[in-house]
Amino acid sequence: MKIITLEWKNNRIKLIDQTGLPRKLEYIYIDKLGDLWQAIKLLKVRGAPALGAAAALGVYLGIKDVKAKSFGAFAKKLDQVTRYIAASRPTARNLFWGLERIRQVVRKNKNENLFTLKKLILKEARKIIEEDRLSCRSLAGYGSKLIKDGDTILTICNAGILATIDYGTALGVIYRAKKVGKRIKVFACETRPLLQGSRLTAWELKQGDIDVTVICDNMAATLMQQGKIDKVIAGADRIAVNGDTANKIGTYNLAVLSQYHRIPFYIAAPASTFDLAAKSGKDIPIEQRNPDEVRKLLFKKEVAPAGVKVFNPAFDVTPHNLISAMITDKGIIRPPYNKNIKKWHA
Amino acid sequence: MKIITLEWKNNRIKLIDQTGLPRKLEYIYIDKLGDLWQAIKLLKVRGAPALGAAAALGVYLGIKDVKAKSFGAFAKKLDQVTRYIAASRPTARNLFWGLERIRQVVRKNKNENLFTLKKLILKEARKIIEEDRLSCRSLAGYGSKLIKDGDTILTICNAGILATIDYGTALGVIYRAKKVGKRIKVFACETRPLLQGSRLTAWELKQGDIDVTVICDNMAATLMQQGKIDKVIAGADRIAVNGDTANKIGTYNLAVLSQYHRIPFYIAAPASTFDLAAKSGKDIPIEQRNPDEVRKLLFKKEVAPAGVKVFNPAFDVTPHNLISAMITDKGIIRPPYNKNIKKWHA
Repeated sequence: MKIITLEWKNNRIKLIDQTGLPRKLEYIYIDKLGDLWQAIKLLKVRGAPALGAAAALGVYLGIKDVKAKSFGAFAKKLDQVTRYIAASRPTARNLFWGLERIRQVVRKNKNENLFTLKKLILKEARKIIEEDRLSCRSLAGYGSKLIKDGDTILTICNAGILATIDYGTALGVIYRAKKVGKRIKVFACETRPLLQGSRLTAWELKQGDIDVTVICDNMAATLMQQGKIDKVIAGADRIAVNGDTANKIGTYNLAVLSQYHRIPFYIAAPASTFDLAAKSGKDIPIEQRNPDEVRKLLFKKEVAPAGVKVFNPAFDVTPHNLISAMITDKGIIRPPYNKNIKKWHA
Repeated sequence: MKIITLEWKNNRIKLIDQTGLPRKLEYIYIDKLGDLWQAIKLLKVRGAPALGAAAALGVYLGIKDVKAKSFGAFAKKLDQVTRYIAASRPTARNLFWGLERIRQVVRKNKNENLFTLKKLILKEARKIIEEDRLSCRSLAGYGSKLIKDGDTILTICNAGILATIDYGTALGVIYRAKKVGKRIKVFACETRPLLQGSRLTAWELKQGDIDVTVICDNMAATLMQQGKIDKVIAGADRIAVNGDTANKIGTYNLAVLSQYHRIPFYIAAPASTFDLAAKSGKDIPIEQRNPDEVRKLLFKKEVAPAGVKVFNPAFDVTPHNLISAMITDKGIIRPPYNKNIKKWHA
């Protein structure tokens, strides 16, 4: 089965409602900006690369019916729309990158008429979709060379097809390694609180006929202690110029564990995830999410006392010194990151 | 409110059904060995020290109606009963210790008649209950001296009143520190898969008016990175003579994180948790539990694909070199454990 996370179809966004997985595979159609904002906030669509494309398409949804009489009036509306989308999730770099791509197109074409500008915005958003497809394939090609036949790989959250337009980042590496004949086993951290690992990664790896085992997040250390993990690969939501990497909460934990157990710890992310304006992890804003995500299991059944305080950051920052290498769509980046990220990005 | 985890009342065991917490505080009454076995297996009663008492009372339930004609016949039945109880949960040392205490009483009184033997068994079981009450208080006294005014303490699973007859081990240290006027904050790891941290520890600390915040297990690293944790205190299910400590899965993870962040990592356990026959963690059997505990949230709602493989050990082993000190009912044990546990136990 071909999984299509997100596409532009019949003048609307068609996407998998990921909150329904693994119980049901359901597509939803979005033609209003407000609905897209909700879909992003509630993680119906998620994953940094997918959010880049969603944000860009969102701009189009937000301006397609605007009847501005001047470029200034249009630019003001555009600014309003991009700010609105930017407020949905603060950490994912790709979302801001997607918005910036659209803004650039508009800046470059400010002399065009409104009709043309709108067409160019949609064209750019669709270009981002196509580019993401290609960059994931490219990243997978580089990353798969780091994987040996027989490796067992631990991953967290979902950095797969469902986090991108196609193929994925961390999981893309695994798909490619399998395709070129390497035998791979995967352990998927369930990734509390929203269980993207057990719900999404386990689901898509099973679809792709990859040997996958789910663990609770607190079990990774035991697996490493028992020598059962050869490599850790995680995605990224934002990477600072010194290599500090924000990703799903729990990633930093795995990085410390990997160093302690001398296991390579890889980050897999496309160029659009790197934020050259962030000097270190300190410059990366961390989203704090609804405490009920922890208190209630998927907002349904209460598993902690009513009103008990909850600490519920959606991400953590893994310092660069814990990262063995970064797998990107333009090749592998190794330490020292402070030097090599700039060099590679140039 | 006074929480009474387990007591012997009107010729039966009265205990809190902990699977109902925090939603409802419900007591159940057990007068059949099979029901006790189920209650232990399903974690209606859990926590190493409480299991020591439950196991001993369980022996009484198992033999109280036996009509043996000789000591040999009685001893055979006793052996059958203790083996049955021993098969409920393999890791908790205290359970085996409780059974051994009963066996010793029988060995010492083999010339007594059946009626007296039964009375002595019940007496010994009730003595274990009283001793646990005292040993937890004693442990708390020693441990609270390690705690400073203003400390923030991270704990995992439930090593509190609900894991013992009264007061608890890791949480007993906190109750005592508070009682002597120290201001303490607690972060409780929710402790997947069965959420003893968010369900039980958060509940009983709230009852005790202690400032508690629940986190998902994968968030502990971030808290430490941000300098928010001063000490980690965990209970124990079994401690080998070299100091290797089996406790709830995720404890080893916290120990590695503590060492990396230079945070003291303490194990709090009574003498009955130490297994002098286990040379190291390799000699400690680790219970593997039902995969559905991970696949379904509290066995109810599916959150992973049907039939997906799951790795679900109930415990991990923390090597002695990651443990700063052990807080026991007979004082603090510091490294080298290989020397000091034997010395202290003598």
